[in-house]
Amino acid sequence: MPERKIILSEREIPKQWYNLVADLPNPMHPPLTPDGKPVTPDMLSPVFPMNLIEQEASTKRWIDIPEEILEILCRWRPTPLRRATYLEKYLNTPARIYYKDESLSPAGSHKPNTAVAQAWYNKEFGIKKLTTETGAGQWGSALAFACQLLGLECKVYMVRISFDQKPFRKILMRIWGAECIASPSNQTKCGREILQKMPDTPGSLGIAISEAVEEAVADKSGRTRYSLGSVLNHVLLHQTIMGLEAKKQLKIAGEKNPDVIIGCAGGGSNFAGLAFPFMINKINGEKIDIIPVEPTACPSLTRGPFAYDFGDIACQTPLLAMYTLGHAFVPPPIHAGGLRYHGMAPLVSEAVRSGLAAPRAVDQIKCYESALIWSKTEGSICAPETSHAIACVIEEAQKAKQEGKEKVILFNYSGHGLLDLGGYEKFLDGKLTDYVLPEEELQKSLNNIKNLPKPKIK
Amino acid sequence: MPERKIILSEREIPKQWYNLVADLPNPMHPPLTPDGKPVTPDMLSPVFPMNLIEQEASTKRWIDIPEEILEILCRWRPTPLRRATYLEKYLNTPARIYYKDESLSPAGSHKPNTAVAQAWYNKEFGIKKLTTETGAGQWGSALAFACQLLGLECKVYMVRISFDQKPFRKILMRIWGAECIASPSNQTKCGREILQKMPDTPGSLGIAISEAVEEAVADKSGRTRYSLGSVLNHVLLHQTIMGLEAKKQLKIAGEKNPDVIIGCAGGGSNFAGLAFPFMINKINGEKIDIIPVEPTACPSLTRGPFAYDFGDIACQTPLLAMYTLGHAFVPPPIHAGGLRYHGMAPLVSEAVRSGLAAPRAVDQIKCYESALIWSKTEGSICAPETSHAIACVIEEAQKAKQEGKEKVILFNYSGHGLLDLGGYEKFLDGKLTDYVLPEEELQKSLNNIKNLPKPKIK
Repeated sequence: MPERKIILSEREIPKQWYNLVADLPNPMHPPLTPDGKPVTPDMLSPVFPMNLIEQEASTKRWIDIPEEILEILCRWRPTPLRRATYLEKYLNTPARIYYKDESLSPAGSHKPNTAVAQAWYNKEFGIKKLTTETGAGQWGSALAFACQLLGLECKVYMVRISFDQKPFRKILMRIWGAECIASPSNQTKCGREILQKMPDTPGSLGIAISEAVEEAVADKSGRTRYSLGSVLNHVLLHQTIMGLEAKKQLKIAGEKNPDVIIGCAGGGSNFAGLAFPFMINKINGEKIDIIPVEPTACPSLTRGPFAYDFGDIACQTPLLAMYTLGHAFVPPPIHAGGLRYHGMAPLVSEAVRSGLAAPRAVDQIKCYESALIWSKTEGSICAPETSHAIACVIEEAQKAKQEGKEKVILFNYSGHGLLDLGGYEKFLDGKLTDYVLPEEELQKSLNNIKNLPKPKIK
Repeated sequence: MPERKIILSEREIPKQWYNLVADLPNPMHPPLTPDGKPVTPDMLSPVFPMNLIEQEASTKRWIDIPEEILEILCRWRPTPLRRATYLEKYLNTPARIYYKDESLSPAGSHKPNTAVAQAWYNKEFGIKKLTTETGAGQWGSALAFACQLLGLECKVYMVRISFDQKPFRKILMRIWGAECIASPSNQTKCGREILQKMPDTPGSLGIAISEAVEEAVADKSGRTRYSLGSVLNHVLLHQTIMGLEAKKQLKIAGEKNPDVIIGCAGGGSNFAGLAFPFMINKINGEKIDIIPVEPTACPSLTRGPFAYDFGDIACQTPLLAMYTLGHAFVPPPIHAGGLRYHGMAPLVSEAVRSGLAAPRAVDQIKCYESALIWSKTEGSICAPETSHAIACVIEEAQKAKQEGKEKVILFNYSGHGLLDLGGYEKFLDGKLTDYVLPEEELQKSLNNIKNLPKPKIK
């Protein structure tokens, strides 16, 4: 029997992050102001600390990970690479399925990889408090955890629908000393305006971002900054530690680079963190199918245009060149709260545009069916977000069987679902329905961005 | 910086369980029938399969672990031994604190170690269905998981107070294909009688055991047996894999055997599983403080007499020689549901009686305070049961500081608290109170056992 877990010692943890920007076939489209001018570091400085702004703009291929960050990451990293032998057997597939188990972090997902790094850089820069938004609470609890360890204050605006339906990660945030409130709230101008217009809104990540940014910028003492859990270059950079570890671990398992790499994609960070360190191999000619998977209810990569758009509903962020459903898009309350974002990381968007990755969308029912197959074979309970990746893994493993090919499939087991059991219960009770975004609604949402500057496509 | 995790490869998993019975200074008191006669294997055969009955009575020191069981355990075992460097720093103690991280199993606790073994032995014996009881749901979900993997049916009687207050492990059991109902139920004679007398009872493990045993025995086809998650010799035996792994891991860390070993104790299995493999060292003259920790609300080891008593409220089980609060004792609804049992494993009881272990009781508030210190330093969220061990670890680390001694403290991190966050919230809201069992209530409960046979103390 092969070992089911490939484990690295703490000494083997990667010492540098990998920056895909250095290897992209085309240069990135720069962030713009609403009137089409490039955003300067100064403009961002009320929102982020300068050390992270520099990292955001870096084109260096390798960036050293500070020793203190490594020390904190080693509380739970390197994470195991596991082989899903029982799922393979169940599917009777010749594919060998490996997964990076990010569910083992204290917050239960990959999010602490960047939360710790961001909290550390902010602390280095003299910041005392971080604000942020969260959907299902994976990111908010991860940042609360990191701030607790580093002695920073933390305030989290949580999308109202999740705040009400998923009370547990709120308690996690409280245990780790953070303040968590429902968004839209009456604590910000933006929140009050939205509540006036739509008092019953379930909220959205776009709204919560607006509120968190507003609070950070409003603190004129300079002690508060904002922190984002996905989308931005430096966030994706911090996550590449996952793919770099997986690359070492596959070698130990005696495997070549994977034939297929899969990750679910909301803002894009767990997908990017696993896939980017292998993209350089694809750029250099290796054949790898790289698949970000999103919900049919929020299909930015598969149905949105590549366009400049705001990252938030209040149009406070710079314009980012990305696949987007329009910044005013409020996705339906599906259970994968972490995938309810209107846009997609510019770096992931550029990778897709360049043909380095080929996105796919899956509906909610198929995701829960796949999650059930997973828990009945591999035994663990995946997050609703992660179930999107698993649905695609099953498709790819079945395809390998049809083709009679011994493919190596690698995916990111981005988090556990122990705090999301309500969705499983609804599924088991037959109360969940599919949701595919109607074209009409998409077009209506895209109207909001038609007068913005357009990316120049090379 | 020392490595924080000591990891064994799957090849290094122990291949045999350790049976303390072989090394006890005094022979065990045998299980008796209510009229004082020794229980024969035949009497137990409607309840357990014969292969486990033989294991229950075994006096062999080492018992081979079947290859198929090892293969399933290797889904998550060997578990890491971790060092709590951040707690050490916070306490400014010279003690080195190690913990066996059993929270990493799919069910989130140490329980699957025996669930998998019991399901396997039952399947070997031709059994198709297992019944059991569960408190907070740790054991029920572990058995559901094991039965799912081995293709057995599973029916769980869950203590009503937990069924109502802790709905999440119910969903886990459903995901893993088990049937879970609230106890007392109207599906058994015993349940119906109790519901008639006490329609508002919160239930207890004793009641739920009665119901699960009744259902197993009532199936005259012989395809159903009962499974117990703690207390019995074979259950504790299966758990010794934890201590055996920890012993190897401490050697790798360059440590001698621990000075102090700590585990929370409800039925006794997580404590025993960690401590027993080191007890032989204590029997052979090493100085080790071995401490089972129980709640002040359910203090069988610290305040109960060593006596023969039934394992369940309906007096269906054999009489076991153990520390007990009386089989009719219904503990108050404290949050550590797994520690709400009136008795204690006979093997743990015998170890305490022989001076091999020295029990301690901690109240609920101190436990949650300790859990908060843990999550703020080490970062993870422990189960309410595990917080009892942590409270004692903190006491012992402070004692080591006062004595200026570089002690090695080992404890069992028996499970995570991600499905028990309601208790944390109540604690943070200041809504929890201490509970110390009143002497009067204890004496009243003990009246029920005064006419039972008495153990002959050597």
